[in-house]
Amino acid sequence: MAFFTNKDISELNHIYKINMVNSLSGYKSANLIGTKSNEGKENVAVFSSVIHLGSNPPILGFIVRPTTVPRDTYKNIKETGYYTINHIAESFIKNAHHTSAKYNSEISEFDMTELIATYLDDFKAPFISQSPIKIAMKYIEEYHIKANNVIMIVGEIQSVTIEEGLLQEDGFIDLSKGNIAAINGLDGYTIPSLKTRQGYQRPKNQ
Amino acid sequence: MAFFTNKDISELNHIYKINMVNSLSGYKSANLIGTKSNEGKENVAVFSSVIHLGSNPPILGFIVRPTTVPRDTYKNIKETGYYTINHIAESFIKNAHHTSAKYNSEISEFDMTELIATYLDDFKAPFISQSPIKIAMKYIEEYHIKANNVIMIVGEIQSVTIEEGLLQEDGFIDLSKGNIAAINGLDGYTIPSLKTRQGYQRPKNQ
Repeated sequence: MAFFTNKDISELNHIYKINMVNSLSGYKSANLIGTKSNEGKENVAVFSSVIHLGSNPPILGFIVRPTTVPRDTYKNIKETGYYTINHIAESFIKNAHHTSAKYNSEISEFDMTELIATYLDDFKAPFISQSPIKIAMKYIEEYHIKANNVIMIVGEIQSVTIEEGLLQEDGFIDLSKGNIAAINGLDGYTIPSLKTRQGYQRPKNQ
Repeated sequence: MAFFTNKDISELNHIYKINMVNSLSGYKSANLIGTKSNEGKENVAVFSSVIHLGSNPPILGFIVRPTTVPRDTYKNIKETGYYTINHIAESFIKNAHHTSAKYNSEISEFDMTELIATYLDDFKAPFISQSPIKIAMKYIEEYHIKANNVIMIVGEIQSVTIEEGLLQEDGFIDLSKGNIAAINGLDGYTIPSLKTRQGYQRPKNQ
C-alpha cells in the first residue's frame, strides 16, 4: 500500500507528481479538439478533460491552461466561437497523442500527423475524418478556476455525427463498438469493452 | 451513420436524450464520493464527473446538480468542508451504481448496499473500504455553471491511499491493475486494460 499526504505530494519531483496526480481522477475521455483561426490556420489538439455538464440543452465542458503555454485551441475558440470534439479511436491513438507536442502556431498538427481535417455542413471548424463520433460545438461561456489558474470552456452541441453501429435503441452510444479510447494519466491509453449496463436504480424496500 | 442537429436533440424523448448526451463526452471516471453530515449521518454516492484540474497543488473537480433534487453530498461538503473520492472497482460495481437510487436523507447508502465505510487518519469523511484508491479531499471553492445550472466543486487532495501493485516507478498509476471501472453514458461500466503508454511528445523536424 502506498500513502501520500498533501505535503508528500508537494515534495515529489515534477514528472512523478504529474504522472501520479493525473492518474488520480480515474479514466478520462480521449478527444481531439479541432479549431480554425480567423486567418484560416487549422489546429487540432488532444484533450482528456471533456466532461458532460447537462443534456437539456446538450452542454459539454473542458479545461484549458492558457496561462502557461500558448494555446491555439483557446485562441481560435475565442476568435471564432466554434470548435469540434472528436473521439479518439484505436487506429489513430499514436497520431492523436502526438498533437500534444508543442508546435509553433504557424504549424498545423494536421500537417505533422496522419489526422485528416474534414468539413461538414459548412461548420467553421475542422472535424477529424477518422473519428467515429464528431461533435460540432459552439462556445457559450468560460470560468476561470482560481485554485489552479485554469479555464473551463463551456459549449453547446450544435450537431453530432455517429458512425454506424454505435447508437443503441434507447439512445445509449456503445463507445466500445467504435473502439474508442479512454486515457489513464498523462499518456496511458486503453480500448475498453462494455461489460455491463446497470440500469436506472430505485430505492430498495427499507 | 447517425446525424443529429441541436434541434433534433432537443426534440428527442427524455430517456433517449439523456442516454445519448451522457455518452457523448466519452469515457468517464467512476468514483464514489463519501461524506458525513455534522449530525453524523454518512452518505455515499456514485459520480462520473470527477476531473483533474491541476497537479501543483493537486486539485480535482466534480459536478453536482443541487438545484434539481436534494443532494446530500453537496449539503455535507458545504457543512463540513471535507469529502472522500474512492475509485470504483469491478467487484463492487453493482453496489456502487445502486447509490444512484434516490433515498431520503435519513437513509445511509452504506446500510442499503455492501459498501463498507472506513475511517483513516482521523479524516472526517468516510472512505469506501473496498476501494483500491482512496482520496481525502478538502473543499476549496465552487462555480455555478450558468449554461446548465450545475455546480463545479473544486477541492484539494489531502491524502491518497493506493493499493499495492498500481503505482509505477515514474508515478503513473496503472488503474487497470486495480480492475478500476470507467463509465459509458449513464449506466454502462467497463473494466479497461492498459494498452499503451505514448510518452511525452516532442515536435518532429519540420
